Amino acid sequence: MKDWLPTLQTNTPEEGYELAVKLARVAVGMTQPDAEIRKKLRPDYANDFDALIASSQVVATHFATVAAANGYWRDTE
Amino acid sequence: MKDWLPTLQTNTPEEGYELAVKLARVAVGMTQPDAEIRKKLRPDYANDFDALIASSQVVATHFATVAAANGYWRDTE
Amino acid sequence: MKDWLPTLQTNTPEEGYELAVKLARVAVGMTQPDAEIRKKLRPDYANDFDALIASSQVVATHFATVAAANGYWRDTE
Amino acid sequence: MKDWLPTLQTNTPEEGYELAVKLARVAVGMTQPDAEIRKKLRPDYANDFDALIASSQVVATHFATVAAANGYWRDTE
Amino acid sequence: MKDWLPTLQTNTPEEGYELAVKLARVAVGMTQPDAEIRKKLRPDYANDFDALIASSQVVATHFATVAAANGYWRDTE
Amino acid sequence: MKDWLPTLQTNTPEEGYELAVKLARVAVGMTQPDAEIRKKLRPDYANDFDALIASSQVVATHFATVAAANGYWRDTE
Repeated sequence: MKDWLPTLQTNTPEEGYELAVKLARVAVGMTQPDAEIRKKLRPDYANDFDALIASSQVVATHFATVAAANGYWRDTE
Repeated sequence: MKDWLPTLQTNTPEEGYELAVKLARVAVGMTQPDAEIRKKLRPDYANDFDALIASSQVVATHFATVAAANGYWRDTE
Repeated sequence: MKDWLPTLQTNTPEEGYELAVKLARVAVGMTQPDAEIRKKLRPDYANDFDALIASSQVVATHFATVAAANGYWRDTE
Repeated sequence: MKDWLPTLQTNTPEEGYELAVKLARVAVGMTQPDAEIRKKLRPDYANDFDALIASSQVVATHFATVAAANGYWRDTE
Repeated sequence: MKDWLPTLQTNTPEEGYELAVKLARVAVGMTQPDAEIRKKLRPDYANDFDALIASSQVVATHFATVAAANGYWRDTE
Repeated sequence: MKDWLPTLQTNTPEEGYELAVKLARVAVGMTQPDAEIRKKLRPDYANDFDALIASSQVVATHFATVAAANGYWRDTE
């Protein structure tokens, strides 16, 4: 997996949020590299609110980083 | 889902808090896109204090970001 | 629920801590708006140390934000 | 409980850490104000590593705030 | 384990992310130094989405630190 | 336990990481001061990946503080 993260800069907050979601998912893939197993685990997970909230927490942590990296997109207004 | 996050700037801390709640919910929707399933999961979740507290934690993390983005609304006083 | 958060500024660290507790509770109320259900859930929760610690974590996250918003009350000494 | 937090400033990092422990405990007391019940819950909790680690996490979050408030005690060296 | 962390500076965000993954794993190794036991625990863990998400959370926290240390790689664009 | 934390400054990132591990452990000791009980709890804990990951999370939070306190060791390169 090369060149998946060339920069933390994004044009809009929305793109920044999508990058945060991506950053959260990559770590999962690095720990369980087998896509087949991840696929099997996924249904349970998507039906389990605790896991959904925990995922949302990881996204929130990455979004804080991406937002800071972009100066909170203050200039884009 | 387009243009749901044009800016992190809000007029008041209260609007900032509402944005933080929204930011927390969007990640859940991205992980489990089926609104029907989310609806079924919701009742249990809303009656489970652990899940309520975990949700509140995600909101707190996003609120930190939104507050920083708004310079803590110091000028609005 | 209007005008519950006019500002993040407080006169003292203690008031800042109380605001952090309030910020933690509001998210719970937004997710489970039924006060009757929250009341029923509360006894278990208050007797469950895991939940007490998790609540304390949410307060800690909000207190970080409120403290930063107030410049850590350095001028009040 | 009045005047328990006059300032976030401490003379040393060690005192700052002790303040972080105090900040973590106060929230628990605010949620479960009955000291008798807290006392009953405590033994289980102190023998449960998950709870010990979760408590340590809350202390870590508060210590970050206290350390920032004190400029990381850089001048005390 | 000596000289495993000479610097927090990396050339690219991607290398910074890899460093964050490394920082997350080292603490696990320090707590359970027996590689044989870690190996035995690993399969369960890699098949348990809760653990995968929790690991991703640790990576996110370290990535925030590494990104700040690198000025968010703003100059590398 | 006196003079265990004279400063947050360390010579290298590696020493900073070791300090973060120490900061994480001290809180556990403050909550469960009986070393004998901690010793009994330890084996289970070291064989439980959830606990290992949670410990790693506490270390990550403290490492963020220590790294900031040291200006991310930028001058040591």
